[in-house]
Amino acid sequence: MRTTTGWRADGPAATLRQVPLERRDLRADDIAVRVERCGVCHTDLHSINNADGAVVPGHEFTGTVTEIGSAVTGFAVGDAVAVGNIVDSCGQCAMCLAGQENFCHEFPTTTYGGTDRHDGTTTLGGYAREYVVRESFAYALPDGLDPAAAAPLLCAGVTVWEPLRALGVGPGSRVAVAGLGGLGHLAVKFAVALGAEVAVISRTPDKLDDALELGARDLIVSTEDDRMAASRESFDVVIDTISAAHDLGSYLRLVAVDGTLAVVGHLGPISLEAMDLLVGRKKLTAAGSGGRPATRAMLEFCAEHDLVADVEVLPSAQVNEALERLGRGDVRYRFVLDMSDLD
Amino acid sequence: MRTTTGWRADGPAATLRQVPLERRDLRADDIAVRVERCGVCHTDLHSINNADGAVVPGHEFTGTVTEIGSAVTGFAVGDAVAVGNIVDSCGQCAMCLAGQENFCHEFPTTTYGGTDRHDGTTTLGGYAREYVVRESFAYALPDGLDPAAAAPLLCAGVTVWEPLRALGVGPGSRVAVAGLGGLGHLAVKFAVALGAEVAVISRTPDKLDDALELGARDLIVSTEDDRMAASRESFDVVIDTISAAHDLGSYLRLVAVDGTLAVVGHLGPISLEAMDLLVGRKKLTAAGSGGRPATRAMLEFCAEHDLVADVEVLPSAQVNEALERLGRGDVRYRFVLDMSDLD
Repeated sequence: MRTTTGWRADGPAATLRQVPLERRDLRADDIAVRVERCGVCHTDLHSINNADGAVVPGHEFTGTVTEIGSAVTGFAVGDAVAVGNIVDSCGQCAMCLAGQENFCHEFPTTTYGGTDRHDGTTTLGGYAREYVVRESFAYALPDGLDPAAAAPLLCAGVTVWEPLRALGVGPGSRVAVAGLGGLGHLAVKFAVALGAEVAVISRTPDKLDDALELGARDLIVSTEDDRMAASRESFDVVIDTISAAHDLGSYLRLVAVDGTLAVVGHLGPISLEAMDLLVGRKKLTAAGSGGRPATRAMLEFCAEHDLVADVEVLPSAQVNEALERLGRGDVRYRFVLDMSDLD
Repeated sequence: MRTTTGWRADGPAATLRQVPLERRDLRADDIAVRVERCGVCHTDLHSINNADGAVVPGHEFTGTVTEIGSAVTGFAVGDAVAVGNIVDSCGQCAMCLAGQENFCHEFPTTTYGGTDRHDGTTTLGGYAREYVVRESFAYALPDGLDPAAAAPLLCAGVTVWEPLRALGVGPGSRVAVAGLGGLGHLAVKFAVALGAEVAVISRTPDKLDDALELGARDLIVSTEDDRMAASRESFDVVIDTISAAHDLGSYLRLVAVDGTLAVVGHLGPISLEAMDLLVGRKKLTAAGSGGRPATRAMLEFCAEHDLVADVEVLPSAQVNEALERLGRGDVRYRFVLDMSDLD
């Protein structure tokens, strides 16, 4: 076993404490990564608040390869890498074979809180100084992408990237993004970079400057009924990144005929009226995480377009403050922990 | 006013009685239609069972033009025509201008139980010997289509036609149709004629011969868990024609990655798990009725492919028997009332 240091919550809603952690010895196809920067995702907060035992969160991180297994061919010591929220999958099912490991029929192994497919241990996340991962679930971090600002691409980024691509967003597409947080601001950046006309939907008008700065053309205030009515059926794609449970009807009304509402922020039970889909032949979908080919394509796209997340970097010792502020929406737009204070 | 004879329910779940009915005098753009055959739709049963006052059902009928208004240009006396479940719309909104009168922002005027946009009267349906309708909401019945077997195309037909077309079903598409009633058997026929590989999903195996006869390749019994599991992610499009409330999860599991479940049979509230959409990036939609261009295109397609409904024709005097048998699913696949006994 290898030892490292990380941040762990020891029960529901517990304060994270710095503790020593064990990592497995490298298997033939493993790499050891010194974690440099790790994004703070809403899922981390959810996992801590609902922890069934100890949890070490963190599933969007960047770092440097420090050691490679005997059969590793894709990475060398010193390489800059990125890891997302999946670290393994069955590799045999139709989904894995199609490069949609996020839909693996045996459920993919998640970066933390998952069960290792070989030794049965529970995976511990990237709020740590080191992570050991199969090389095939690590990605080369393209040159030129800031390691802190790139970290959130690996979860928040690919979660919005996949539906935007699957729904064919490109030049001429009309896209609305509801909610302007970690997911939302990346959805705006991606849609703009893909050539779409983008609007932001927000509860308050004070996000207008931010929306315009991100490349959106417009802000629609969701509490202004007239404005919402005037925007009826105006968007081919609406990406709903709102993290709390909410009514989908008002967002479906913004979708144009044959268009799609993609829910990415709140993945619990959904209730809606069939008529809200029927009138306009609208579609509802949901998305989260991404397959490996899509993740690679996204990173290439980001390198080409110099596209990264807007982040606030904090020393990892401030992880509890970051989580508390995230819980009340006080972040613009993603916290990233700097792990170098764990040395 | 003009008088005719029809079948009316005078309250919730009432037996229909033969009564004299009034029709408006022809406006300049109206035609009078002698109704020959009228299909019996599940909506009729629902409307009678939930009647708030008197209701004359019937919204898929064929007949002959007997008189035309002064400005009518599209029809002449003696023409064979068909009428569906919409008889007017605002004509001004984006949906009407796009030929999707079924999605009219002011809600289209339904063939019965609607409110006439000119005189404010409640519309009375096609369970009658005569109907008066704007010529622009009547369709020429193509030569060669049997008037009885064609009647259900105007509601059941276009309801499944629109989503099949909008979802791009054609050669190579894998389509499953859940439920083999009025909507379902037409969905199978259309999908087969469009070149798709079609399977029927049914609660019982006794529909196998019927499914094969309609052109399907296969029957999947929804209560056989092994079979349902083996059919996971096998269909680009699943058309769900089941008329009762039911769980959508088991049907979503049959949808392939980026495929769509279209609900057309039960249009009440929908509950589902976001994860059932997320895993496989699946889409949910709903459909009902159709716009005028789609209705015309469907009728042309039916004429080309000699495609009509499988119907059981009863004298209109047996309307209550037809409704009772429809309520317990004893129909293969659509009742059509012969109105000639009203003379």
